[in-house]
Amino acid sequence: MEDQLLVVNCGSSSLKLAVFDQGRRKLVSVLAERLNTDEASARISGTAETIPLPDNGSYERVLAALVEALKTRGILCRDPVAIGHRVVHGGETFRGAALIDDQVVAAIDHCASLAPLHNPVNLAGIAATRALYPEVPQVAVFDTAFHQTLPPKAFRYALPETYYRDWAVRRYGFHGTSHYFMAQEAARLLARTHDTTSIISAHLGNGCSVAAIRNGRSVDTSMGLTPLEGLVMGTRSGDVDPSLFDYLAGKGLSAAEVHKTLNKQSGLLGLSGESNDMRTLCDLAEQGHSGAALAIDVFCFRLARYLGAMTASLTALDALVFTGGIGENSARVRQQTVEHLSLLGITLDSVANARNGADTEGRINAAESRYPVLVIPTNEERVIAEEALRLARSTQSPSTD
Amino acid sequence: MEDQLLVVNCGSSSLKLAVFDQGRRKLVSVLAERLNTDEASARISGTAETIPLPDNGSYERVLAALVEALKTRGILCRDPVAIGHRVVHGGETFRGAALIDDQVVAAIDHCASLAPLHNPVNLAGIAATRALYPEVPQVAVFDTAFHQTLPPKAFRYALPETYYRDWAVRRYGFHGTSHYFMAQEAARLLARTHDTTSIISAHLGNGCSVAAIRNGRSVDTSMGLTPLEGLVMGTRSGDVDPSLFDYLAGKGLSAAEVHKTLNKQSGLLGLSGESNDMRTLCDLAEQGHSGAALAIDVFCFRLARYLGAMTASLTALDALVFTGGIGENSARVRQQTVEHLSLLGITLDSVANARNGADTEGRINAAESRYPVLVIPTNEERVIAEEALRLARSTQSPSTD
Repeated sequence: MEDQLLVVNCGSSSLKLAVFDQGRRKLVSVLAERLNTDEASARISGTAETIPLPDNGSYERVLAALVEALKTRGILCRDPVAIGHRVVHGGETFRGAALIDDQVVAAIDHCASLAPLHNPVNLAGIAATRALYPEVPQVAVFDTAFHQTLPPKAFRYALPETYYRDWAVRRYGFHGTSHYFMAQEAARLLARTHDTTSIISAHLGNGCSVAAIRNGRSVDTSMGLTPLEGLVMGTRSGDVDPSLFDYLAGKGLSAAEVHKTLNKQSGLLGLSGESNDMRTLCDLAEQGHSGAALAIDVFCFRLARYLGAMTASLTALDALVFTGGIGENSARVRQQTVEHLSLLGITLDSVANARNGADTEGRINAAESRYPVLVIPTNEERVIAEEALRLARSTQSPSTD
Repeated sequence: MEDQLLVVNCGSSSLKLAVFDQGRRKLVSVLAERLNTDEASARISGTAETIPLPDNGSYERVLAALVEALKTRGILCRDPVAIGHRVVHGGETFRGAALIDDQVVAAIDHCASLAPLHNPVNLAGIAATRALYPEVPQVAVFDTAFHQTLPPKAFRYALPETYYRDWAVRRYGFHGTSHYFMAQEAARLLARTHDTTSIISAHLGNGCSVAAIRNGRSVDTSMGLTPLEGLVMGTRSGDVDPSLFDYLAGKGLSAAEVHKTLNKQSGLLGLSGESNDMRTLCDLAEQGHSGAALAIDVFCFRLARYLGAMTASLTALDALVFTGGIGENSARVRQQTVEHLSLLGITLDSVANARNGADTEGRINAAESRYPVLVIPTNEERVIAEEALRLARSTQSPSTD
């Protein structure tokens, strides 16, 4: 049996493990959801097969139960050769993936005030797999790292310098692993080299962000200090007037209440009054639901605005790329968005777009479009597996390589 | 002597009167500054001649003193035929200028919660001139009115509908009079008609905003609920991650403190640590001051991003237009901004740009530029005078016209 890699993704209420072979194929994944609630459950992805979870739902115990389930089913036969962890925030410390040791753990902990809902659970996952597999190299792959190449003009807010120096207030950007993947895959599909390829990438999932990638390096992106800034998302507002907090204080709302509403009750959900799910909204809009239609309109318009904004960082554009649940599957969203880009000369082929580029190697632009447009299914787990393997190998002495 | 028009602009600490003839020439203006402080002073614009102010600095008494000074100097010989008032916020009520009566005053007062620093002083100015000239038609010209043609996709935030319905939270946009003036003047310079001309306009003064104007109508703009959103300004931050308030609460800063910092200590001043004045910063940057250079870089980059974003609302572009103190006078800012627009095919002629378009009827684009670029000195007062005259005439019966 070929050597295996394990990829760990700990969210605030979920835990996902994926097993890869070294040919970069995903063999299987297991997902535990609604952790810390009475409805906590876990199953093998793509099946109805459930996995029993321990009553005490600590990350360590849940992770051990999932690993055990993979072992008993004969999926994970021996120790993986490397374990890759998704970590949300690497601050300015991590410009790439890092082989985990106590120092790296301390540095991730140090970044926790920038991502209080995420870094602590990412660290819990790291502690759990270090306890289970003390001998296996473990690697942290950061959502922020790919955007560490942003120039100061793009990452600095127009705030007093002390906010940056003392409190690390700057734009970091997220979804870096996905944007990196899109840049790599776009270069491959266009038969170009990664470091001479420039794209605008749109990751449209539950969270949404765009990036400008110049010669393989991220030079601008829509998310900032946190993943709230930028585009309209499922329940997140994206950009608002910063005076909103002061204005609503006058209506009796605390800043904490407003912050919670912007994260949990806004975005597609807030505009439509119905759902945070783009598929549901597209169905409702077809049935004449005006709130759903408005939510889609605002989502696409604001996305188009940001795609236009990304051009400010590029001198050449090799492709516009869509990924994520919405980006890969919603022909309506792509069509409605690109209709706003006529000054940029971008147009879609309606048949290829309707098929999500399935028959055209991802290409959905019309022949006359000034730039190619691609649909590329994202695969952040594969990048994490590759990075884990690459760094694990780099620790081995040449003689054992 | 020809009939005259009076234009009144009451700010939070200043009061300006301008006298126009009906040929739309400004004859003179008087400016009172630092009102409500010990250093309050007033002078005839463009001269060193001061005007004594009453000790009790109510708007009514200051305005009366300024009018008296204009009379004694023989500038204002008889009652003006109309008086135009700049009013900052017209909410959704005013889609154009309005002839002032008690109902209009009540409606402006109703909008005051949206502009608590401005609408009340605008109303004080209106009350003062109504008391001085009870028989003269008075007209309110709103900063927001020109942007009332924004479509819902551009004016709605991705917030719960109740925020819009119950609290009027939406994007309004400001500097409307200046953006309208740019659209009119651009059409004239291009020998086109206003309602078939599409431009992107940049008003860069103490406050800064861009607008997308499609066939003469505003369809997108960078300012929102208040004039804090959007571009980097002298002391205002423009856009920030809305999580900033929550993040800084964790550092012990109240939302009110952060709001004040974003308005008063941010923007060019915050980034440079030196000045909110672009001329000063350009001088410092030439001398090697890194904070000043960073402030200019962020200002220009964020402006270019927004110019790109505005293309999402247009299918044709007849000109990119710059105005305002910075837009009209800073060749460096225009040059550095347009360098980010190479994907849009926009380039400048360096000689014409250095001359602020003075010898080229405002044109500063290179011959090969895909779109014309114009410098147009703004003249909001003239628009207010014209609107005042137009509405005053519309109240007269045909027989007296």
